[in-house]
Amino acid sequence: MNISRPTLLLDTKKMTANLDRMWERALLRKVELIPHFKTHQSKEIGEVIRAKGVSKITVSSVKMAEYFASNGWNDITIAFPFNILEIDAINRLTDKSINVNLLVTSIETIDALIGGLNAPISVMIELNAGYGRTGVSTSNSSLLNAMAKKITESKLLYLYGLYCHPGNTYGCNSVNEIRELWSDVIDRTKKVKEELSIYNKALKLRIGDTPGCSVVESMNGVDEIGPGNFIFYDLVMNYLGVCEEEDIAVAVAAPIVEKREDNLTVVVHAGGVHLSKDHLFDGDEQKFFGEMVILQEDGWSEIIDGAKVVGASQEHGTIKVDQATFDALSIGDVIGILPIHSCLTANLMKEFHCMDGRVFEHMEKVF
Amino acid sequence: MNISRPTLLLDTKKMTANLDRMWERALLRKVELIPHFKTHQSKEIGEVIRAKGVSKITVSSVKMAEYFASNGWNDITIAFPFNILEIDAINRLTDKSINVNLLVTSIETIDALIGGLNAPISVMIELNAGYGRTGVSTSNSSLLNAMAKKITESKLLYLYGLYCHPGNTYGCNSVNEIRELWSDVIDRTKKVKEELSIYNKALKLRIGDTPGCSVVESMNGVDEIGPGNFIFYDLVMNYLGVCEEEDIAVAVAAPIVEKREDNLTVVVHAGGVHLSKDHLFDGDEQKFFGEMVILQEDGWSEIIDGAKVVGASQEHGTIKVDQATFDALSIGDVIGILPIHSCLTANLMKEFHCMDGRVFEHMEKVF
Repeated sequence: MNISRPTLLLDTKKMTANLDRMWERALLRKVELIPHFKTHQSKEIGEVIRAKGVSKITVSSVKMAEYFASNGWNDITIAFPFNILEIDAINRLTDKSINVNLLVTSIETIDALIGGLNAPISVMIELNAGYGRTGVSTSNSSLLNAMAKKITESKLLYLYGLYCHPGNTYGCNSVNEIRELWSDVIDRTKKVKEELSIYNKALKLRIGDTPGCSVVESMNGVDEIGPGNFIFYDLVMNYLGVCEEEDIAVAVAAPIVEKREDNLTVVVHAGGVHLSKDHLFDGDEQKFFGEMVILQEDGWSEIIDGAKVVGASQEHGTIKVDQATFDALSIGDVIGILPIHSCLTANLMKEFHCMDGRVFEHMEKVF
Repeated sequence: MNISRPTLLLDTKKMTANLDRMWERALLRKVELIPHFKTHQSKEIGEVIRAKGVSKITVSSVKMAEYFASNGWNDITIAFPFNILEIDAINRLTDKSINVNLLVTSIETIDALIGGLNAPISVMIELNAGYGRTGVSTSNSSLLNAMAKKITESKLLYLYGLYCHPGNTYGCNSVNEIRELWSDVIDRTKKVKEELSIYNKALKLRIGDTPGCSVVESMNGVDEIGPGNFIFYDLVMNYLGVCEEEDIAVAVAAPIVEKREDNLTVVVHAGGVHLSKDHLFDGDEQKFFGEMVILQEDGWSEIIDGAKVVGASQEHGTIKVDQATFDALSIGDVIGILPIHSCLTANLMKEFHCMDGRVFEHMEKVF
């Protein structure tokens, strides 16, 4: 590959292995995998996932639903508290026979849907089982019942199920803690499912985060899972202990433009507009924005021990290395950077360069 | 304006006032304004700046130079340590009679240029006067002389000047501190200019950051300034004390999708892929990703006291408000968010919606 500018590399073998593993996990636990496409936002990667047997997908915006609808997907959950200003866009999707499934978290939103929809759609009530970002608290029985009742009474809405993204797994300190958190989330959400089953006996429970979906053994009571990040993984997932370093399927190729002997750093063209400003902290509470690998013909090396991106401004990345690595690198070399948060990095890079030369698009490039 | 999705608003009156103010500052101090276009990356905004009298510009990547070259600019400084893998791209620009001005920070880069250029170009030696991100230390006299000598002896390179971005002004705690830092930077860089004048008596000294360019009174010895962020400003600049809140010329319009009474937060569609993950810390060391304003027909209100974006995931933004504000807001309202770092927000939003209905492009949307 002839790389002269910041370029997002995709190792499709690693990606496919990640997909196979999640598919097997879902199969074994008898849950349906309805993957979140916000991580890749790519029609070509969508096709890889479709080939595995997936027919229903999750996205995080109406725009993303439009993009994937225009690429042959017709069962799409928009996993974001529905924005009532976009009802016309939903009507345009249902006009094209797309099965849209929306998340609702308030009576106001349900009322607006009933008042504005042209055709029936499915909805899921989003539940907050402790994460607290969005959703109706699993303990708010009166609101949950009022919402379920209102949905059920409307001819335009079908109460398909309950959706929960326990994003608090990202704050766990061990795989066991993630499993315990999920066990608690399943308890709470199952109770709601039982309570609301008077409105629909076939109510589906979907739980969504990559950490939990990657490591939890028992998913008893869960019907569907909707992880997204697992397709690439990243350093956040690796530090959480839910993937191996070698599972990370994307890396930013970055040319070295300067070397500084006095503090053993190299400066690369790869900054906040390529990696994003998401970061982790090392053992000394120092921020870092990625870790360095050496690019190889068909992929990349293990992480070079201690070689972290310690600074990221708009276009500059600064990598701290040891003396031996410093001596081995030259201006004009292209190194790789494993991203902190692959979803944000992909969204910024807007294109995937596979090791075999194929280029996959990202929605942000074309839509 | 009919807004239903996250939308970047541009108040062109504020932008023009910012431009006028910087133009006057430069005029009074007899320095040439060679603005950095990385903040807006927009051909239309470029035309507003050209109309003011600007003919030379600064960019931060070869790609950005290509974009502006294709939009009628023919004197472009690429203010990034030159990436020697892009020599062919530079040759394509000089083939089109674009005057390219490159930053060099090492003998290796100079050698590569001499070996690969088809036609003569100008270069500036980038100086590190204490910031430490990139550039040759102002105290490294032997390297500076060796570089200047090598450049001067080459028929392909013209030693145009010295470039310094004192980004450490971002870490200052007062306007006075910024002025003192600049005074030190001018001292150090002027000495280098004097020392290297044996190679070119007309050597230009350019200094670049928005904080300094916005507040420094004496620029004696400086020939050119290259600020970028001043065109929009942002909360970082406001908290630094180098702009007023009302100078901030961009805001992200964001629809409210959920309200949560128990902790007085509203959730909007505007997250890390819109605002970026750059943040500031409030008095209680709490991170925030933007501050809320109320949108008006021809602009937006002052910042709503205490209304900060306290959480930003990929698509979600969570805003903490007081009870009165909470009560006044409804699901389906569109509020505004002033960005922490306008360069990164513009890069993500990829389009500017002016209050009069015009839409300005951003390079990332089209190039």
